[in-house]
Amino acid sequence: MKVAGHSYRSIEASPEGVVVVVDQTRLPFHFERLELRTLEDAAQAISTMQVRGAPLIGATAAWGLALAARVDNSSNGIKEAAARLRATRPTAINLKRVVEEVAAALLGAPPAGRVALARRLAEQVCDDEVERSRRIGVHGCAALRELHQRLRRPLNILTHCNAGWLATVDLGTALAPIYLAFDEGMPVHVWVDETRPRNQGASLTAWELGQHGVPHTLIVDNAGGLLMRQGRVDACIVGTDRVATNGDVCNKVGTYLKALAAVDNRVPFYVAAPESSIDWGIEHGGDVPIEERDATEVTHLSGEDEHGVLRRVRVTALPTRAHNPAFDVTPGRLVTALITERGRCPASREGLLSLFPERR
Amino acid sequence: MKVAGHSYRSIEASPEGVVVVVDQTRLPFHFERLELRTLEDAAQAISTMQVRGAPLIGATAAWGLALAARVDNSSNGIKEAAARLRATRPTAINLKRVVEEVAAALLGAPPAGRVALARRLAEQVCDDEVERSRRIGVHGCAALRELHQRLRRPLNILTHCNAGWLATVDLGTALAPIYLAFDEGMPVHVWVDETRPRNQGASLTAWELGQHGVPHTLIVDNAGGLLMRQGRVDACIVGTDRVATNGDVCNKVGTYLKALAAVDNRVPFYVAAPESSIDWGIEHGGDVPIEERDATEVTHLSGEDEHGVLRRVRVTALPTRAHNPAFDVTPGRLVTALITERGRCPASREGLLSLFPERR
Repeated sequence: MKVAGHSYRSIEASPEGVVVVVDQTRLPFHFERLELRTLEDAAQAISTMQVRGAPLIGATAAWGLALAARVDNSSNGIKEAAARLRATRPTAINLKRVVEEVAAALLGAPPAGRVALARRLAEQVCDDEVERSRRIGVHGCAALRELHQRLRRPLNILTHCNAGWLATVDLGTALAPIYLAFDEGMPVHVWVDETRPRNQGASLTAWELGQHGVPHTLIVDNAGGLLMRQGRVDACIVGTDRVATNGDVCNKVGTYLKALAAVDNRVPFYVAAPESSIDWGIEHGGDVPIEERDATEVTHLSGEDEHGVLRRVRVTALPTRAHNPAFDVTPGRLVTALITERGRCPASREGLLSLFPERR
Repeated sequence: MKVAGHSYRSIEASPEGVVVVVDQTRLPFHFERLELRTLEDAAQAISTMQVRGAPLIGATAAWGLALAARVDNSSNGIKEAAARLRATRPTAINLKRVVEEVAAALLGAPPAGRVALARRLAEQVCDDEVERSRRIGVHGCAALRELHQRLRRPLNILTHCNAGWLATVDLGTALAPIYLAFDEGMPVHVWVDETRPRNQGASLTAWELGQHGVPHTLIVDNAGGLLMRQGRVDACIVGTDRVATNGDVCNKVGTYLKALAAVDNRVPFYVAAPESSIDWGIEHGGDVPIEERDATEVTHLSGEDEHGVLRRVRVTALPTRAHNPAFDVTPGRLVTALITERGRCPASREGLLSLFPERR
């Protein structure tokens, strides 16, 4: 994707093996790239959320193992590095999977070849992520193209949270179809939910769409229902953290409300769901544990004052207590289709099995 | 209602005729009372939103006329004062109605008696508002009592925006049933939607519930759907700015999304609708004009920093554009009942006419 006219991936490595990521804690105010030179740099970047988004976290962890192998290519060293990386975000399923796969491959190779192998594997993880995003983009873009051909006017697409370039290695999941549609010249405009409490829409999605030149407008999370009733939303596309095998979708809190409004107004509601987000071990969305985060994410906010100084302010009275669940579950019945690397399918057990017959 | 243990109304007058309101722009950080001594003081308090909420605006305007009459009791003076007050919030229907009624009564009286009459009328407007709130409270509290007797556990009630003591003269509309239930000893807990973009829930509703001692928890607007799916909401009660004659409800943006979630989870969704909010001239909710407010309400926020200094920060990148509709329309089919001064009724033409047969 482009930032100020230059093409970037959210994680890149120099020929010398220095890994460069975008410090997402500085966005949207500053675009700063951060060099990761050690295992500890990579682990810190993940745990402090300088990098976030399941695909990008996995890619960063793979590079973390490569950085670790250069210092200590012993089996013990690899195992310790894997444990360190897994501990950064204990509930991140994709992180766990990538670390286990890469570590197993390294442990199965002779120590002398591990440094080069680790680098190749990390590059492969990144390239695979980009290819996954591209395929989701192609399948989702086809849905947008059908819609555009039917409506014959610029498409208004609503998205929630950030499932874009910054959350993956390139393109994104929910935003990949939008970027491909824009790049092929389809007239698109994106309604960006600000996505309280962490404001990923306001600070990340709006920023990355803007850098790439995609027309977009920020709205509060409350506004999407009205816009749908006014006929000003042609489709919703969101990402997902986990899909249950019955098609229920766990995603950033607030997604469910938008899906209800979409159904009530006959607006197609798409969920970009890479295969890695499908949890074949969970039958119903109600069984997905919902992370509760710190209440200060609700009561406090950060932004720049009139002098460009970053400040954190409390927006509530001191005694006010808050509850802060991070995700919700959207029943599959509200979802028009899941968009996976293999194509679109109904958000149901039969739908998923039609695309992944090997899981029958 | 109580603040720090003392009873207040949101607008009161001293025997000397000084009108005292709460400066709501200083909440939730400072409880400061503001003296209105002139027509211009009253007009400024309304236009700068130091007072807000349709009933309170009407009451402030009535007192504004009383303050004006003391300086100039001529018919021209009364007319000019009425025009000045009406211009403060041109779309506020209740303000227009109160100003026209009080001004007409004053113009019909001999000039010598106008000062005393204006004061009596302003007191009457305030007392009438309190009585309206009390009746809505009684009818709504009956609904909560039925629910409590059926569920036999503490009630969790979700509300959106601020339709409480601060928006009326006392008690509120949506919050009146909750205050009465709490005061009679019913165990209640309120989920307070923060209500972006102006955060009336976070800054006003949470504050006033806290001052009165009502247990409550702040949530982001995105969280209510999840809580309903988790069975943690027993009822929703919101206020309204305007009810169409078919029962459609115009209220703070985001209300519609909560109503959808309530229906999807069989949670009763009540709308506290004083008779003054029913617009007999509008048939469908879709015909209510939706006010669009300044985009900086979305992109900027105010709060206290760690030193207690009030600061305004921008939470988005500079080029980010926002769209800021202030209200949405909830179709009557999603509303369990309207709660009016005359009792509960279905949110439909027939329902409204059953309570207001004189409108047939």
